[in-house]
Amino acid sequence: MEQRTSPDNVIYVGNKPPMNYALAAITQLSSGSKEVAIKARGRAISRAVDVAEIIRRRFMPETKIRDIQIATEEVTNEEGQKLNVSSIEIYLNK
Amino acid sequence: MEQRTSPDNVIYVGNKPPMNYALAAITQLSSGSKEVAIKARGRAISRAVDVAEIIRRRFMPETKIRDIQIATEEVTNEEGQKLNVSSIEIYLNK
Repeated sequence: MEQRTSPDNVIYVGNKPPMNYALAAITQLSSGSKEVAIKARGRAISRAVDVAEIIRRRFMPETKIRDIQIATEEVTNEEGQKLNVSSIEIYLNK
Repeated sequence: MEQRTSPDNVIYVGNKPPMNYALAAITQLSSGSKEVAIKARGRAISRAVDVAEIIRRRFMPETKIRDIQIATEEVTNEEGQKLNVSSIEIYLNK
């Protein structure tokens, strides 16, 4: 049975250097996971693309991009206002 | 014959507000183009996702994301150094 992405192999990309997230994903893919999902919102979207490219260009050329999804999520800020923020999900498998 | 994306309907996303690029794409799609490609590099990648989401969420819900590609491009900076920069291409059609 094909393994699908479980919560365990989702990497949420934030404000740290891209290499941190790349290493987390590589660790997942090297320890039995067939797929990781790299997710980000707002400005971190650019970094999520960097992370996916670092993994497949520099470290694991055998990985493939299975799918890329973009969406809009509604978030509530500190003042209680609802804002729309873009998001991305990049699915890498091997 | 199916129309493919020509150079005319490529929108390059830079540092202007997302709405500027969204309106350029909507103009293309409303004047005969069946598809537009929204392209960006580096930090503008997040904005390219915003542009695609604005178009299909707010203005043209009949548009579909046909494909999303990410890549790494080599650019030369002002000091003559070669740098790798991530890029994205989002293909929207109707």
